[in-house]
Amino acid sequence: MKEIIMEMLSQNKVHDARNELLTMNVVDIAQIFEEFDEADRHQLVRLFRILPKDVSVGVFSYIPPELQQFIIESITDKEIKGIIDELFLDDAIDFIEEMPANVVKRVLKNTDENLRKLINQFLNYPENSAGSIMTIEYVDLNKEMTVQQALEHIKKTGVDKETINTCYIIDKSRKLEGVVSIRRLILSEETDLIKDILNDDVISVKTLDHQEFTAQVFKKYDLTTMPVVDNENRLVGIITVDDIVDIIDRENTEDIQRMAAIQPSEEEYLRTDIFKLAKHRIVWLLVLMISATFTGNIIKSFEDVLQNVIVLAAFIPMLMNTGGNAGSQSSTLIIRGLALGNIEIKDAFKVVFKEFRVSLIVGFSLATVNFIKMIIIDKVEIKIATTVCITIFLTVILAKIVGGLLPIAAKSVKLDPAIMASPLITTIVDIFSLMIYFKIASLMLNF
Amino acid sequence: MKEIIMEMLSQNKVHDARNELLTMNVVDIAQIFEEFDEADRHQLVRLFRILPKDVSVGVFSYIPPELQQFIIESITDKEIKGIIDELFLDDAIDFIEEMPANVVKRVLKNTDENLRKLINQFLNYPENSAGSIMTIEYVDLNKEMTVQQALEHIKKTGVDKETINTCYIIDKSRKLEGVVSIRRLILSEETDLIKDILNDDVISVKTLDHQEFTAQVFKKYDLTTMPVVDNENRLVGIITVDDIVDIIDRENTEDIQRMAAIQPSEEEYLRTDIFKLAKHRIVWLLVLMISATFTGNIIKSFEDVLQNVIVLAAFIPMLMNTGGNAGSQSSTLIIRGLALGNIEIKDAFKVVFKEFRVSLIVGFSLATVNFIKMIIIDKVEIKIATTVCITIFLTVILAKIVGGLLPIAAKSVKLDPAIMASPLITTIVDIFSLMIYFKIASLMLNF
Repeated sequence: MKEIIMEMLSQNKVHDARNELLTMNVVDIAQIFEEFDEADRHQLVRLFRILPKDVSVGVFSYIPPELQQFIIESITDKEIKGIIDELFLDDAIDFIEEMPANVVKRVLKNTDENLRKLINQFLNYPENSAGSIMTIEYVDLNKEMTVQQALEHIKKTGVDKETINTCYIIDKSRKLEGVVSIRRLILSEETDLIKDILNDDVISVKTLDHQEFTAQVFKKYDLTTMPVVDNENRLVGIITVDDIVDIIDRENTEDIQRMAAIQPSEEEYLRTDIFKLAKHRIVWLLVLMISATFTGNIIKSFEDVLQNVIVLAAFIPMLMNTGGNAGSQSSTLIIRGLALGNIEIKDAFKVVFKEFRVSLIVGFSLATVNFIKMIIIDKVEIKIATTVCITIFLTVILAKIVGGLLPIAAKSVKLDPAIMASPLITTIVDIFSLMIYFKIASLMLNF
Repeated sequence: MKEIIMEMLSQNKVHDARNELLTMNVVDIAQIFEEFDEADRHQLVRLFRILPKDVSVGVFSYIPPELQQFIIESITDKEIKGIIDELFLDDAIDFIEEMPANVVKRVLKNTDENLRKLINQFLNYPENSAGSIMTIEYVDLNKEMTVQQALEHIKKTGVDKETINTCYIIDKSRKLEGVVSIRRLILSEETDLIKDILNDDVISVKTLDHQEFTAQVFKKYDLTTMPVVDNENRLVGIITVDDIVDIIDRENTEDIQRMAAIQPSEEEYLRTDIFKLAKHRIVWLLVLMISATFTGNIIKSFEDVLQNVIVLAAFIPMLMNTGGNAGSQSSTLIIRGLALGNIEIKDAFKVVFKEFRVSLIVGFSLATVNFIKMIIIDKVEIKIATTVCITIFLTVILAKIVGGLLPIAAKSVKLDPAIMASPLITTIVDIFSLMIYFKIASLMLNF
């Protein structure tokens, strides 16, 4: 598709290209825009300028920030004003937040005073708060209206709203009194009063609530929109489910990155420069590298055992990995359970007891398989095989209890449980597994 | 809240309890039901039976399967029929899928023949397919209708639909011809014809498309409902965004579990018995444990070096962990990028080149810090410190390239990239890091 459009542009058939684009969904047009090489971007601006206003604004809200910036820098002040006026407020905020200061200045200069004030207010909501993701294009009704009046009001104002599927009933001081779905409006009699059909059991969040909490409320109640209120229960905006879907993905990405000892970042991998990528990884690697000093010290303190039975060294990697993996399995399940709200701090004892019983089964199975393998295939001395396999058994038990408990402990002191994942658990379990290993070896082999 | 209800029930004030519940959202009522102890469940059934039909059916769709089963086993055939008739088809399917055979038999016996046929048809869609999550309670219109006729049709039939926010235009053979939003209907003139206002650029999925793909389409186009069609483009159902939100979480959980070497399972941790938990963990642990034999063999083959410079053993854990962590960071970012569609197979070269450059920065930093630490704090011989730090540098480079490449390689042979996460990457990197370590040691220390 991009090729067809490019071909048309190179033959100067800009209007043909425009008509071709107009058969498509704005999301797909945005994707074609994104695929343009930098060298051809001036062509793209030409095309952008002759798209119908509603389409160009839609496309604008879906293209990545650097392309938004390029377009803004290539068009007139008047065109900028046109775009900002038409964008939904949440999309406008998302866009402005990504722009460098000079672009922001030019954009705000070309915005009506009222809108500018609103934008500044919204920019002030903390990152990741409900306020930072809401928008103001909602339908408000008052409770004395009849259904017919409400529908007429929607007919008049609905075209500029992000959604009309849920309407909000507010009083004169903008306090939220209830919600009514468009379904309810349509299924009611025209003469019914809004106050008789509204639902006053409204599920809402506050502007400063965290977006992750907001997402959980959406999920719990299967919502598609939710009102955002201030401390006086005044309606200040609404959040729509499409933004929540993005947030769920983003929060998951954050957790997954943290679980791999990476400082979380929202930037896409291929768009992030190598220094930033390196920076996000080095800190944890350094911490973990230095922490491994403990493990080194344990080996050093048992150097005489090792020197005499050097074959013991050959099983160190296997023991460390098995312990680390067993612990990570547990911590991963618990971290995920905590994130989804299926496990709570008060379940700590249940978790430990469960992990203990699971670890007995898992530890025993691994130790048995390994014992048979060591005796039959590796033809290792029985004493050594016994040492290794008792270590496996005990390490798995310990790893699973530590792995199960630490994420809950982290949560109870308000740390993100996701840091208690594989890398840290592995380092902690290593220390214990080596201590157990050498202790048992000393006993079994009489050192 | 649960306490108040329990108190009322114990005083035999069932109707007070009912009225108390009716002030609440069905999701919250379901949660209270869930918190009842098993001993009090007969009370709960009493309460359930006197709830208004729409509320009891709503609650039923939100309670966990074992409670659904308990209720079904405690009520009459007629009551069962009432519930099944009122449930949305997707909720009915979800419920039936979780029930044991005897319950399913009883439920289907108490279902009208048409509905029974439908249920059987839906039960046949493969797990994780779009067909398995769709429902049939949608509004269909035909394109010759006027807006007024359409609205009247919605008014007549809308009460039983899962959503009326998007309506589907089909021809006589049920082929999907377009969609129209309720907003569009309301904003149009009553005399407008549906065929003139419908949107025929319909985004849909097929019954057999995977639910993960379905979720990606929802996210891409910011949808709240999507039609599902068969191979002849006949409309067979719709999917709503609330189910997609659950699927996104479920797919993320699956990925996260797979990344921690656990066989994925949808069951909540606290509800899963220990044998199942153990079973889901043992296989990978065994595979990884046996794979670690390679690492052991490398150590064995360098036993003479180790025996002579036993201090080398002290750094093995640190080297293994650092390599493993560096590799996992890379593989995690790539696995996530692939899952979100930000990275594709064709980006393999870009990824490797990026990881190579990042690894130079990271490897050099880690090696330098460690060298200084070893010389100043640990007071290790320079030759040994040099051996260790060159190994760190090379291992980090290798780990990051392997970690960046393997998930893409897995995807290109249709394996789930998530298996190329920390546990497997660590095991692979271990082998190389130890080989590098002992090779360099032999050279530096002249063995």
